[in-house]
Amino acid sequence: MKVTVLSGGVGGARFLRGLVDVVDPAELTVIGNVGDDVEILGLHVSPDLDSILYALAGLSDEERGWGRACESWDALESAVAFGGAGWFRLGDRDIGLHLVRTKLLRGGTPLSAVTAQLVERAGLALTLLPATDDELRTWLDTAAGSFPFQEWFVARGHRDEVDVVRYVGADTAAPSPGAVEALREADLILIAPSNPYVSIGPILAVANLEAALRSSTAPVVAVSPLIGGRAVKGPADRMLARLAGGTSPAHVASCYAGLIDALVLDEADAHDVENLAVRPVVTKTLMSDADARRRLAEAVLAA
Amino acid sequence: MKVTVLSGGVGGARFLRGLVDVVDPAELTVIGNVGDDVEILGLHVSPDLDSILYALAGLSDEERGWGRACESWDALESAVAFGGAGWFRLGDRDIGLHLVRTKLLRGGTPLSAVTAQLVERAGLALTLLPATDDELRTWLDTAAGSFPFQEWFVARGHRDEVDVVRYVGADTAAPSPGAVEALREADLILIAPSNPYVSIGPILAVANLEAALRSSTAPVVAVSPLIGGRAVKGPADRMLARLAGGTSPAHVASCYAGLIDALVLDEADAHDVENLAVRPVVTKTLMSDADARRRLAEAVLAA
Repeated sequence: MKVTVLSGGVGGARFLRGLVDVVDPAELTVIGNVGDDVEILGLHVSPDLDSILYALAGLSDEERGWGRACESWDALESAVAFGGAGWFRLGDRDIGLHLVRTKLLRGGTPLSAVTAQLVERAGLALTLLPATDDELRTWLDTAAGSFPFQEWFVARGHRDEVDVVRYVGADTAAPSPGAVEALREADLILIAPSNPYVSIGPILAVANLEAALRSSTAPVVAVSPLIGGRAVKGPADRMLARLAGGTSPAHVASCYAGLIDALVLDEADAHDVENLAVRPVVTKTLMSDADARRRLAEAVLAA
Repeated sequence: MKVTVLSGGVGGARFLRGLVDVVDPAELTVIGNVGDDVEILGLHVSPDLDSILYALAGLSDEERGWGRACESWDALESAVAFGGAGWFRLGDRDIGLHLVRTKLLRGGTPLSAVTAQLVERAGLALTLLPATDDELRTWLDTAAGSFPFQEWFVARGHRDEVDVVRYVGADTAAPSPGAVEALREADLILIAPSNPYVSIGPILAVANLEAALRSSTAPVVAVSPLIGGRAVKGPADRMLARLAGGTSPAHVASCYAGLIDALVLDEADAHDVENLAVRPVVTKTLMSDADARRRLAEAVLAA
């Protein structure tokens, strides 16, 4: 069974770890968010693609929640000492990957081909596609100003309430090679429990990707990132409250209006499905360990 | 007293450590070799400038003889795992500096201004100038082919005998800002105990620099890199034997014909000065520790 997943970083990566326990990775295509890509110290960083790669390759730091395990921080410390920017934390092993990616990109290799090399080198069998090879960046308009994603999220600690989310470059961005086909030919399409605005939104902002999703014949199932109306981590709940008007399953589903057939939601939200226009699938969605991740993946597939 | 030194990497850096014990660093200008600069993993590496900076800032690894002390190697290991080149060893702290340099260079800052920032950040008072801000690269023609410096030196372990040394780009390279003035206004000009062909040669290949040296009124004193006709480290002796016809003080001085007034040489070579066209200054030149370095610097100044 061919499964295609739209995914952001950390939460999506955790979901995918469970999914590869129950789906043959060779049948799995992940379309990843690049709206939060950022250039740090001259390096092209793709945080969401890397979170997925590190998680699936067993290289991620579980406790910190991002980056690589057994990481050291000497290069960044040295760069800062010599006048480089230190606001975005890059570990040494992480920098190794960014060096390889940046060199290939500067040499003209598209991000999708670079990502394929990294995935292959990590020994993974899935297909991991950036939503686009073109530059697409998520910007947040707030009362304090407009910020590119990482400046809003990391540098300012996502403290500014968001009025508008913009996907700069989306109107001219083309889907990366194979992405439209992966949606067309999928037997099942999943939207990972990622932030609808800053993780999934930038993927859907690529016009041909949303069209491919809209016209797909496969069932499309989204997993809510909220539990009891709260984000496990990050600002998804605050953004939904402000931009969608609430944090119920119906508010989550409204972000994917006309695109999904079912919404997987946590037991803690089961009481609150009255205005939900798609089929609710109630299960435990907290991915606290490998068993919980696999059980969620099984429930999603059963949906 | 204003002192200007032409210097290569490791040997020159060691010499400069002694020199700053006896010369006010604020009066010291070093013109460094960039002929062995190289792009590694997309990073602009300036090995000789960095050897000088690390040595004078007390950051260099004495035992290894290059790079930084307390160095880790995680970024390179990761880069190699993801398909990057691993033949040129870059440590994590070293990479931090290269990231800062490379980003500034790509943004249009000239190498001399980048180097000034790094020197200032390292807390050093001397002026360190690359010979040129333009691209100048040392190539070695050998029976096995032509190689850029680092490929010949590191990748092939300088095993190929050199027939011709070429300084590609030298004919159009301009001296970096301040370099000609530093030679014109110096009270004393020194040539460090560096390899005449691959360390000092690329500096002198910048036409206006050699002219400024030639027309300087200050005494010009070179320090031989050989002891008993042998290089302390590296291929200087083999190159002199092959390209200058021998390893005596006269052969060393022939590399600087018409440019120097005196040659500082080791006691082990004092017997062999008959054809030497410049004034010999005999002392102990092995820089085995801080005392030896300072004594050599004192002897050079006394010359």
